[in-house]
Order: sequence, then C-alpha cells, then structure tokens
Amino acid sequence: MRSDGREPGRLRPVAIAVGVNKYAEGSVLIEAGDTKVLCTASVEERVPPFMKGQGKGWVTAEYSMLPRATHTRSQRESQRGKVNGRTMEIQRLIGRALRSVVNLQALGERTITLDCDVLQADGGTRTTSITGSFVALALAVAKIDARSPFAVYPITDFLASTSVGIIDGEPRLDLHYEEDSRAKVDMNLVMTGGGAFVELQGTGEEEPFSREELNRLLSLGEQGILELIDIQQMALGAAGARIGTARA
Amino acid sequence: MRSDGREPGRLRPVAIAVGVNKYAEGSVLIEAGDTKVLCTASVEERVPPFMKGQGKGWVTAEYSMLPRATHTRSQRESQRGKVNGRTMEIQRLIGRALRSVVNLQALGERTITLDCDVLQADGGTRTTSITGSFVALALAVAKIDARSPFAVYPITDFLASTSVGIIDGEPRLDLHYEEDSRAKVDMNLVMTGGGAFVELQGTGEEEPFSREELNRLLSLGEQGILELIDIQQMALGAAGARIGTARA
Amino acid sequence: MRSDGREPGRLRPVAIAVGVNKYAEGSVLIEAGDTKVLCTASVEERVPPFMKGQGKGWVTAEYSMLPRATHTRSQRESQRGKVNGRTMEIQRLIGRALRSVVNLQALGERTITLDCDVLQADGGTRTTSITGSFVALALAVAKIDARSPFAVYPITDFLASTSVGIIDGEPRLDLHYEEDSRAKVDMNLVMTGGGAFVELQGTGEEEPFSREELNRLLSLGEQGILELIDIQQMALGAAGARIGTARA
Amino acid sequence: MRSDGREPGRLRPVAIAVGVNKYAEGSVLIEAGDTKVLCTASVEERVPPFMKGQGKGWVTAEYSMLPRATHTRSQRESQRGKVNGRTMEIQRLIGRALRSVVNLQALGERTITLDCDVLQADGGTRTTSITGSFVALALAVAKIDARSPFAVYPITDFLASTSVGIIDGEPRLDLHYEEDSRAKVDMNLVMTGGGAFVELQGTGEEEPFSREELNRLLSLGEQGILELIDIQQMALGAAGARIGTARA
Amino acid sequence: MRSDGREPGRLRPVAIAVGVNKYAEGSVLIEAGDTKVLCTASVEERVPPFMKGQGKGWVTAEYSMLPRATHTRSQRESQRGKVNGRTMEIQRLIGRALRSVVNLQALGERTITLDCDVLQADGGTRTTSITGSFVALALAVAKIDARSPFAVYPITDFLASTSVGIIDGEPRLDLHYEEDSRAKVDMNLVMTGGGAFVELQGTGEEEPFSREELNRLLSLGEQGILELIDIQQMALGAAGARIGTARA
Amino acid sequence: MRSDGREPGRLRPVAIAVGVNKYAEGSVLIEAGDTKVLCTASVEERVPPFMKGQGKGWVTAEYSMLPRATHTRSQRESQRGKVNGRTMEIQRLIGRALRSVVNLQALGERTITLDCDVLQADGGTRTTSITGSFVALALAVAKIDARSPFAVYPITDFLASTSVGIIDGEPRLDLHYEEDSRAKVDMNLVMTGGGAFVELQGTGEEEPFSREELNRLLSLGEQGILELIDIQQMALGAAGARIGTARA
Repeated sequence: MRSDGREPGRLRPVAIAVGVNKYAEGSVLIEAGDTKVLCTASVEERVPPFMKGQGKGWVTAEYSMLPRATHTRSQRESQRGKVNGRTMEIQRLIGRALRSVVNLQALGERTITLDCDVLQADGGTRTTSITGSFVALALAVAKIDARSPFAVYPITDFLASTSVGIIDGEPRLDLHYEEDSRAKVDMNLVMTGGGAFVELQGTGEEEPFSREELNRLLSLGEQGILELIDIQQMALGAAGARIGTARA
Repeated sequence: MRSDGREPGRLRPVAIAVGVNKYAEGSVLIEAGDTKVLCTASVEERVPPFMKGQGKGWVTAEYSMLPRATHTRSQRESQRGKVNGRTMEIQRLIGRALRSVVNLQALGERTITLDCDVLQADGGTRTTSITGSFVALALAVAKIDARSPFAVYPITDFLASTSVGIIDGEPRLDLHYEEDSRAKVDMNLVMTGGGAFVELQGTGEEEPFSREELNRLLSLGEQGILELIDIQQMALGAAGARIGTARA
Repeated sequence: MRSDGREPGRLRPVAIAVGVNKYAEGSVLIEAGDTKVLCTASVEERVPPFMKGQGKGWVTAEYSMLPRATHTRSQRESQRGKVNGRTMEIQRLIGRALRSVVNLQALGERTITLDCDVLQADGGTRTTSITGSFVALALAVAKIDARSPFAVYPITDFLASTSVGIIDGEPRLDLHYEEDSRAKVDMNLVMTGGGAFVELQGTGEEEPFSREELNRLLSLGEQGILELIDIQQMALGAAGARIGTARA
Repeated sequence: MRSDGREPGRLRPVAIAVGVNKYAEGSVLIEAGDTKVLCTASVEERVPPFMKGQGKGWVTAEYSMLPRATHTRSQRESQRGKVNGRTMEIQRLIGRALRSVVNLQALGERTITLDCDVLQADGGTRTTSITGSFVALALAVAKIDARSPFAVYPITDFLASTSVGIIDGEPRLDLHYEEDSRAKVDMNLVMTGGGAFVELQGTGEEEPFSREELNRLLSLGEQGILELIDIQQMALGAAGARIGTARA
Repeated sequence: MRSDGREPGRLRPVAIAVGVNKYAEGSVLIEAGDTKVLCTASVEERVPPFMKGQGKGWVTAEYSMLPRATHTRSQRESQRGKVNGRTMEIQRLIGRALRSVVNLQALGERTITLDCDVLQADGGTRTTSITGSFVALALAVAKIDARSPFAVYPITDFLASTSVGIIDGEPRLDLHYEEDSRAKVDMNLVMTGGGAFVELQGTGEEEPFSREELNRLLSLGEQGILELIDIQQMALGAAGARIGTARA
Repeated sequence: MRSDGREPGRLRPVAIAVGVNKYAEGSVLIEAGDTKVLCTASVEERVPPFMKGQGKGWVTAEYSMLPRATHTRSQRESQRGKVNGRTMEIQRLIGRALRSVVNLQALGERTITLDCDVLQADGGTRTTSITGSFVALALAVAKIDARSPFAVYPITDFLASTSVGIIDGEPRLDLHYEEDSRAKVDMNLVMTGGGAFVELQGTGEEEPFSREELNRLLSLGEQGILELIDIQQMALGAAGARIGTARA
C-alpha cells in the first residue's frame, strides 16, 4: 500500500479550474493531490526573431516554483540572478511537448507563452505543468478561434503527462514527493490523445533498469495519461470541440 | 462616481483566506478587489550574518509579480537576471513596515521571511502585500508561541496599509489600477492598530500637492486602515489574541 | 544642542559651485556640511524607447557613492555586478522629483540625465543630490535656451529637498549621519518654490509617529527648503531667470 | 542509404586516444565520425558542500562547445555571461549517467569532475561525451587505485551512450548532424555493460511515435552500445581490468 | 607646436591636493591639465583569501570613470552589470605598479585599496591615476607609521607614470586626449625614483615602430617621470621622508 | 642551464598544424613545448555596429583556457558568469596585434574572429595564441582571396610573438610556466616580419629593470620572433604568398 493509500496504478485526485486569471487568454489552476500549479497562456501577435518571416507561430513555456512551494523555503531565482539547470530543463520540456500537438503553420505569426507557476509542490510538478498548460493553451486557441475562426485548427491532438517509477521493487503511477525521492527508477511520459509518445525520459541513476521493467512502466503510464485526457476534455468542454478534427 | 461604483471613501471588498499553503508556517491569500496576493511566512532558526550574535531576530520580505499578473505579460525577473528597482523598493518597504511592529529581541534568534507573490494585479499590490503579510506573520508567530510560549509576545501591534490619491480633483481611498495610473497625487500609508504612522510615501510627480490636500488624504487613509485591521482580526481569530498585550 | 552645535531648525552650511565639469551641459558641486555630491546634467537629442514618438522629452537620474565616500570602504556596485536596492530607490526618487517641475512637452524630444556621484557622505545624500541636480538641470536647460530659446520654458518651478527627523524626542532639520542613524522617525521632503509637496517619504521603523509629530516635521522641512531655494537662486543667477515665468 | 554511406544499424568510426593531457588524472580525445570531444577527469580530495560528512565521493560533469565547433560560429557562454539551457541539460545528464556506475561510498571523500569540451560537432556530442568521459573517469580511478588500491572498486560497470532516430521512416543508429536535424523521432540511450538502461530520453517533437517504433529503436541502440563498450575496453586496457569485479 | 601650446617634451601642468577626503587614510585630487582623478587609500587590517597566513600585506587598486568624465556620457558599469576589459586592464596595471615599490612583508597583514575615480578625462587617466595613487598610498602608510612606526619602512621607492607617443612623426610627452586618439604609437611608462622601469606598455596598432623610435620615446618618458616625482615629493612633504631609507 | 635543457636564447620546439577544423575558414593547432592552442578564424560578412558604414572590415579575438589546461582545474568562466580581467586583457592584446598587420579598408565589410582556445598551458599562452592565430587569419584571408581575389591584399606583413624575461639574473627567451612564475622581469613582444614592434609589454613587479636590461631582452626577443615567422611561412606555404606584396 502506498503512503497515501493509493493502489499502484492509481492517479492522485486531479482538479482543473479554468478562467482563474482575468487578464490571460487562457488560465488554469491544476491540482494533482497536493501539487498545485497555476498555468496561464499569453498570446502575442509577433514571433521571436529566429521564427520571423516564416509565416509560422511559436509556442513556448516558462516554469517557476514559488519560494515556499516546498517543505523548506528556497531562494528565488530572480534574487540569485540566474535560472537553474533544473528549471531550464523543465521549461524546455514543456514547450517542446506542447509544440508537438500544435500546427505552427495553422497558428499563424503569433506566440503563445505558457507560464507554469508552482504554488505548492508535492512531486510531479513538471508533468502536472504539462497537463495543465495544455488546457490553458487550448483555451487561448479557442478564444482566438471564437474571434476569427482558423481554417485549419492549430491544435492537432490532446496531450497530457504523468510520471511512473519503481519504488520498493513495485512499478507505480503518478509519484508524490516522498515516493519520487525514494524511487530507484523514475520516468516521465508525455503522450497524445491518439496514444503516441511525445516525450519519454527515464533515469535509473540509483539502479539501471531492464527492458521488461521499462515495458511495465510504459503500460502503467499510458493508462494514467488516458485518464488525464478525459479530465482535460471535461475541463475544456466546448473549448475542446475542434481539437482533433483536423487529423480525422 | 468611481469606475467600479465605489464612494470616494470606500475600500474595495477584501477577503483574507488563511492556511492556503501546507508547508509555510503562516500563509494567506488576500484579495482586494481584483488584486490577489499569496503571502507566506517562512521561519528559519537562524539570522542573517549582519544580525549574528545580538540575540535578536529578523523579519524580511520578498515581493514578485507572476508574469501574467498584469494586462500584458511582463518578463520574469529570473529570466532578465536581475530584480528591478520597483521590486526592490517594494520589498524593502514591506520588510521595514512589518519590523516596526515586531519586537526583534522578543522574537529571539530566528528569521521570518514573508514572500508576497502577486497572482493578479489591479492596483495597490504593495499595500495589499503589507496587509496580507502581516496576517501571515502573525500566524507564524502564533504557531511558534503555541509550541513554546513567548515571555514577551513579539508582535506589538496590528499593522495594515492602503493607498490614497487625488483623481479628477477628488481625494479617494484604495485606488485600483485605472485610478492609480491617472492619479495626480498618489500616497501609500502604513499604520498601526494604535493609529500611528509607520510609513507615509506620497508623490506628486504629475502635480505637487498642498498641505491641506495632504491632510485630507491622511484622514481618508486612517479610516481605511482601521477597517482593514478589523478584517485582519477576524481572519486571525485566536491567533491574534496575544497581539498588543505587551504594550498595554 | 546638536553634536555639530546647530539649533534644531538650522540647515548645515550649503555651498553650490557651478561649472565644475568642462564637458557636461550643466554641472554642480554641492556641499551640505561634510556631504559632497558632484551633479552633472547630460543632454542627448533622443528619448528612451518607451517615450518615442510622443513629442516629449525625458529627465532621469543616476546616483552612486564612491567606495570611500563613507567611514569604511564599501564595494563598488560595478564589481558586485548589480546595483543595490537603496541605490535604485534613490535614483528613481531623484528622477521623479525633477520631472515634477519639468514640462516634458516644452522640453522637446531630448533626454537630460542627471548623474549624482557622492564624493563624501555625511547624511542626506539623497536630498542633497536633489537640491544639487536641480541646479545642474537648470544650467543645462538655460544652455539649450541660450542657443535656441524655448517658446514655453520647460522648468516650471524651483525644487529642493531636505530631511527632517525626531532624535531624542526632538524634531530636527537636515540630519547628519550620526543623527540619521539614531533617528526614531526620519522623513525626506521634496518641495517646489511655490511651497507644494512633490515627495514626502517618512518612516518610523523604530517607532511609529503621530499626526501631530508629522505636522511639526513638515513645518520644519518647509522652512529649510525655502532657504535652499534661495541658495539655488544665487548659484544660478541669470540661468534661473526664466524659471517660473511660465506659471505666473 | 545514409548520406555518409552507412547501413541503418552501423555506428560511425570511433577512435579513443588516451593520455592526451599531461595534467589531468584521466584524459581522452574521442572521435565519432567528425564529432571530436576532449574529455578530462580531474580529481580533488574534497566534496561539494551538500555531500560533506557522508563519507562518500562525488562525480560531476561540465560540457561546452568551442565557438567554432559548429558550421557557423556561436557566441561563447562566458561572453554571454550565462550557461544556456541546452548546456545545463547535457552536463546534468553526463554527471547523472556516470554516477549510475560509480559506488560513491567506495570512492571515498573525493570529487571527480569530467570536462567534456567539444572541439568539432557533427551530431551526437552528448552521447559521445558520455562514452568518452567514462573512459577518462576509469583512467582517473585506475590511477588512484594504482597509488593506493581500493578495497571495493568504485566503478561497478562499463557505460556508454549512443543516439537512435527515425529518418525518412527508417530507424537508424548514431545520427550525424544532418540526420539529427531531420529526424522526426530522436532518442538518446545510456546503457551499462550489463545491458541495463541508465537513461532513455526520446522526443517526438515533430511527430509522436508508437510503442512498436520505440521497441525497434531500443534494439538498435542496445547493439550499438555493446560495440562502443568493446572499444572502451580496448582503449582502457589494463586500466579497465578491475571494473565489474565488485558486482560478480 | 602642440594644440595646447606645449613643447614636445613638456608635461601638462600638474597639481596634487592632499587630504581631500575626511574618511580615507590617504587621499589626493590630482590634476594633469584637464584630467582630474580622485585617489583614496583605504586600509583594512586583513588580507584577501589567497594571501592568508603568509604574514604579508596586499596592495590593490580599482579604477572607474564617472559617466560624464568624457565628452559624451557613457553608461555606468554598475548599470551594465559588468566591468569592461579596459577598466580591468587599467586597475590591474595600477595595482601591479604600486606593489613594485611596496615591501609586502614589511607592510604586515593588511590590505591597502587604492580607488582611482576619474572626475574628468582628457587623456592619460591611467598614468595620472598611478602618479596620484602613489601619493595616496604614501599618505596612508605614513599615517600607520605615525601611530606605530614600521621597523622596515614598507615603501621602497617613489613611483610615477606618464605617457609618450608619436604624433605627426614627432615623439611627444604626456599626451592629452586629442593627441592620444591620433597617435600612431602610444606608450605608457611607470618608473621608480631610482630610474628603473616597472611597467612599459607600448602599442603600434596604427603603425609598428622601430627600435630607434622606441629609444627616443623612453628618453622622453624618463625625464617626465623625474619631474612628476619631484611634484610628488613636494605634495607629500614630511609624509615622504622615510621613503627610500630602507634601500640606501 | 634551463630546467628543460634549453640555451637561454632558444625557443621551445614549435609545431603548427593547419586545417584542423572542418568548418572554420582558417584553423591551426599550434604547440610550443607543452603549450597547445587551437586557433580558428571565422569569417562573417558583416561588421560590428561601431564599424558600420565605413567600408572597412574588422578583426577581433577571443581567448579561453579549458578548465584543465593547467596543473589544477580552474572554474569555467561561463560558470562564474563573467570573463576575468586576465582573459580580457589577453584577448584585447591578440585582436590589437593582428589588426596592426591588416589593412581593414582592403579587407572590406567583413569580420574575422580569431578564437584561441588553450588546450594545455605551460607558459606563453598569449604569445603562442598570437603566433598561431596569425596563421589562422592568413589561411582565412587566402581562402577569401582564392574565391574572389583582393585588389589590395589585406595582410600587410607577417606577425609573431614571444616572451622574454630575467630569471636568476639571466635574460631568457620563450619562458615556460615554471620560469614565468619565477621571473623578476617578464616581457611579451609582438613584432612584424619587417622587424618593427607592434606591442611591447614589460613588467617588473618583482624587481624594476634598467634600460640596459631592457635592451638585452629586446634583442633576444627579436631573434626569436624571426624564427617563429620562418615557421609560420612554412606552415602557410602558398597561402602566405601574397603577404607583404602590398608593402614592397
């Protein structure tokens, strides 16, 4: 039995509240157990220099933890004067993952920036940020679409993320902090609504893992992500209606 | 009539939710109209180098706005690599104001750091941060006191803050963003429960102001701060009971 | 009696030498007791990006202390790689104060930068910087005017600044360093020649202050500022002749 | 046929020259096709602050590209004043991977830093850095062992890395730059001599991939890594003799 | 004839005012023509980490130009967030030059920091800084000596610096800004009272120079430096009396 | 006898390998004894902002040491977040020296950047960088010339550099690290093929030097530089053929 009473293959309770910020084009407060992330999508009608003149849009992400999101307070990156490696790694991952389900051509010359600010952290902040920011992104795109419908809808599929790991020899889904810090093997998965892999990052720093263990973890993760996508669909309601129509 | 329908001397609706972060020793989500600030108090059993060996504690604050707290997204200070002047000015103000009602000797050799993170900004973020972080501070001190009662209670009085200004020739209390950007004269007040001034920062960049105008603004501010202190007392409940006993 | 023998309501001796830098459009060495600040005004025929295309000018300030301006040497901000909060706060204040007596429309699309470099510090460096840099600004504007007269003179009034505080229960004018560090209440005032307030920053970190105390400090400050403006007028001579004519 | 004439399942020619730096405790110049990386291992008899007092050692890595390692010159990170996200991500990966085959307890209180400097880049610089720096690490450990033999040998297994990807619908091993930039799916694998996974990072930013595709890529990678480990063993010679004895 | 009417072999008028800062252990305002540098010497009773435990002292220098020391205003290094290469080069030169006439053993475990702040620049700021800061250093050492006499006097000789260059084919002494910017060959010399070279930095970026030209420049420089040392001796008076006694 | 068995007036063995980088327009690996520097020349068809619109080109240099180029590992400047003074001084010297033999007018509006990366350091890294980067520069210019011949050849002369110093009272040529750290007097010379001085930087921090000592050092250096230029000519072969023709 896990320390919070869950079965090995169960997600933590997930809640997605939409429209939580009155300025952002899309906004979401996502809670997965005690992990809480505020995700906002900001639309700007221009693209970064390296994308100019291609007639394509851009989607990018930034990630940050509030200083007291964790058990003990950590120093602000703004005070340290630089962003640490972990933060960069995570925000690059979020951006890359979201872009995999966006048709940048169809989006047109605009940038959507997803800000994922972790209000409280209990493990899985990067996967929760991906799951939440997909919804914020979808809300922002639906808002643009409502004003001036896209010929080809720029979001091509749903996208969600979760973690899996091996703790005490047992494969488990959606690790909370205490499990995460004890896991011998730890893997983050990002998948589409169509069941394909977008990102797969597994690490066995403590103990290398076999191909068989890998397969068991992948199966656990697939099932969790499908559940998360159901929750995203409910949260989006009508704003999710055009997603996927372009690929049928 | 003001754009949100308030009388010149009325505060915006204020709500203070306590205990919103499961790790912080004190935490508050304060809303003043559409301005929302998350305030956490973190206790560490050590003092910064410049306070060492004096047998006294320290209270300090940090302030930050989420990138999309405002109408248009602003760049993160962590990405720019430095904290801007406005942020520094505000966090120095919050720390100084809170220390004015803390007996650092009585607090003992520990540091309490107040983090004020603005989730949504509609004017008055610095005054709302002071009002909210006083409550977070009081909760953290009450928590220490519950574990091991202070001989002399380290919080000596209540403390709250609001803004006043002259808009269209009319003195008004608690400016929201649109008023703040049009105000000819703009003043932030911090006062104690005992009705004394702790900070008073008035600026007439657009138009200098007379002593008579100053007096009208001060009266308006005093009354607003007393209301805010009533709300703080309700939010604190029993956790506010020992405040002020040391001064009687 | 004060440690330097002054009455509570007396300024320190003030000397303003003009034209001390051969390159700057306006330059001043101001001494207030042992506090010495070199103020230069530099005119550039362009405005910062955020002011472009408005047909208006800009006035801004930078402030810095030489490393050995103080009792013990302090590290250069250029070596630390960042400007500290106190410096930012002060230079924002100087710029804001000066702009309150400048008609930016009348100034035209140019920027005047005031550099205030403290050669020796004995309290009141920010107020002395304001008083001195007003003169440097007025010299630079007079120089432009001599070359090509302004239709509307861009300086609308005189402007000076001083500090007041409560030391040993006594309100005093123009604090030197030793008084400043012992003051329970400490206030900086910026006022115009017309006797109106431009900035008022009072702090009672050590001890909150009553409205009556505030009133006594304001009266003391007003009188000191009028004296400083007399000295500015003498230093400026003919270069100050057009100031105020636009408002009559 | 691939642009360099290789079969889909063939590695590029790999050469590992050892002892290329006269100061470093271990040093290697590794060439994989036109990718050339200089790897040095530096031993220090102390550990970083967060490892102090645990009686354990530490292994860490830094990665950098010379400015003209690539087709067009890129700015030095030292000139930009900060390390970019890609660099941080890579050096974190190298360190984590190497630590997975080091018994830090057996290593004792010392730090080994692997510097991977890319002299010329033609794809696969991170995987080549891992393969090369493992050899540099093994040389440094053998050198310590020669002076004073370890009771338990701190390197527990061989370790190498390669990339796999899907280009034009075909799974291929060890991508060079031109393939890497066209790959729809791209995966880096790190494995031990014992055939277990240490790191697995796959990304389908351009096109999500199925579980079947994943399986084909893993098989291709496994075979390449075993070949690389053979080459490492030849390069190490006697210096590799004690590796693996601790796990038998 | 030179643009300021000097003969090729003449220095600009030099004035050295001592005791210009009431806090610094030694202070000097040196003027060489229109170049004005404020030099302060600050004594601290500790040495930097790399000098600890050797029973020796340290002498170091920092150099900076006020933003409007030059024809057009330049950005503060504190605002840019880093010290530029020219500044570093100059302050390293000043420190190295001064240390050549200091017996660090005799100085004892203390640090003397020379701050050279250029108030107005008209060429030769680095050489003027050396000449001026030697006097500030000598004043500080004399002050320590007065309190507690040194067994061996730590200053072993006088030290001054000037520039020479070839302008319009003519070797000239002590270049002002306009000459400096037109010089084909430009050389800075630092010499001792005993007539030996301490630093010699010549550059012919515009046009290489022959050994014969070099010799003519060196002769010109030697003579100028002897004149400067006479002026230093007058400025120091009794404070210079013990210099050189240790070497006789 | 010197520690490596050389006569006082002998250079270390020098080897220059060209074409060592497949992307750079010119590249060289230069070895002088155990000092090894990789020099690449990168051509860009634009000039830096301060050179725009003058119809002239620009030549600049960057210098860096790999962390383990030295006996003990030193921290990367990219990790420290800033370039140190020594690095800046050296790269400014390299750029200035190379420009002295380049006709920027004849080069046309393009920039050539020389990157000097020290792979292993045993003294003389700055002089070896100059000698090597001249060859890389000459290769890049010859490559441009081959594609589209210059009317006036932009390289006006050969250029090389070496060090000289006084060790144990003896003037010596081309100091290695151990000599460099013991030298009382230390001088770097840069000269042209025509035998003229371009840079001359001598320092007697440990002990001032006389004019006679200077003359002996200059003679030693001249002879060494002529030998280096012979080696450069051999390394360049046909690519050096047009150098100097413009000046005949």
